[in-house]
Amino acid sequence: MSAMWTVKVLGLAAVALPLGLELLGRLLRRLRPAGTLNQVLFFPSEVACVEHIFSSLSPRSCLCPLPHGVETSLSRLLRSVLSATSSLDLCVFAFSNMNLSRAVLALHDRGVAVRVLTDRDYVTISGSQIGVLRKAGICARCDASSVHMHHKFALVDGRLLITGSLNWTLTAVQSNTENVVVTEEPDLVRPFAEEFLRLWERNDPARSLRPQRPKLQPGSAD
Amino acid sequence: MSAMWTVKVLGLAAVALPLGLELLGRLLRRLRPAGTLNQVLFFPSEVACVEHIFSSLSPRSCLCPLPHGVETSLSRLLRSVLSATSSLDLCVFAFSNMNLSRAVLALHDRGVAVRVLTDRDYVTISGSQIGVLRKAGICARCDASSVHMHHKFALVDGRLLITGSLNWTLTAVQSNTENVVVTEEPDLVRPFAEEFLRLWERNDPARSLRPQRPKLQPGSAD
Repeated sequence: MSAMWTVKVLGLAAVALPLGLELLGRLLRRLRPAGTLNQVLFFPSEVACVEHIFSSLSPRSCLCPLPHGVETSLSRLLRSVLSATSSLDLCVFAFSNMNLSRAVLALHDRGVAVRVLTDRDYVTISGSQIGVLRKAGICARCDASSVHMHHKFALVDGRLLITGSLNWTLTAVQSNTENVVVTEEPDLVRPFAEEFLRLWERNDPARSLRPQRPKLQPGSAD
Repeated sequence: MSAMWTVKVLGLAAVALPLGLELLGRLLRRLRPAGTLNQVLFFPSEVACVEHIFSSLSPRSCLCPLPHGVETSLSRLLRSVLSATSSLDLCVFAFSNMNLSRAVLALHDRGVAVRVLTDRDYVTISGSQIGVLRKAGICARCDASSVHMHHKFALVDGRLLITGSLNWTLTAVQSNTENVVVTEEPDLVRPFAEEFLRLWERNDPARSLRPQRPKLQPGSAD
């Protein structure tokens, strides 16, 4: 009877173990990475003080007339950008927003490797921050193609993607109806990381010796 | 000995079963819905014939001079739009692309409920398809706010989100450097569905009796 029990248990284990391992393997392959972030921010953002995001001070310690201690789409976007600890790859059509520029400069000051790619024609828009970033020592390249480099995405530490309709301008943040997706989903992050590298290398000034054609009219419904 | 084995097996089962069920429950809670789609399309799209996407004909049966049987970003985007079986909610800043217009018209002809929301100023751009859609009986509303409705997203059957930098224009599809995210991720789809409803209701002509202010200059780096 004891031998019969042993045989039964061993037989059951012999069937159940490989089946269980196969099932577990399949489940693990379909698991999300722990705590995968998927967030959507809509704009226009409420106007509120963001001073505390750049410093360790309490929101209440700022004396400016804007509302304090309010979490807004802009404050969430700034926090996502400022979460970078090793790299920020930014690929944005138009960049004139002072708060976002301040965040990028803060990262550079902290030693985060920042690369900025922007549209050649929109580098000259009123209030463009590209010159400010370059003066601070940040490497910024302009897309040299004859059409618009219309992306508006950022990659934080190669793991967090920030992308959407929002150009990094004051009008886009404070006035327009816009969206930004913030995601750690690897199937979305990976293609954008490859796209950034492709465009970054394509616009390496050392490589682009070809004559540049005039672009399409800036401001067309691109 | 037999009784000892039985006790051992039952004891082991009593410990292993609840632990296993707890572990399984945790794993299942972190599982993605089966086959969750997460795709990124980059533009400009290769120029190729898309006739076969609109008909059941073989790609080779079209006699136009464009390359045939080539899968492109545009063909993938068209397939995503045409996968709608019950509804298409479209919220797009500028809409002049003939192929995308043809896809929306085809859905309407099939009985799919189509709603289109667009920017008031960009409804008049050269080649705008909004008038064509309206003539076909599709309900299209223009955003009445004084700033840009700069979204470029579509919701297919309330389950698939198409969003990115790409306006639905020929220049955006064939020339610009652009991106489109196609995702079924519920945490991303849900906020966009709520945003569409919010804007759709806000721009209900029966409700908007307020005078409309002139918008910011169209074509600014919004």
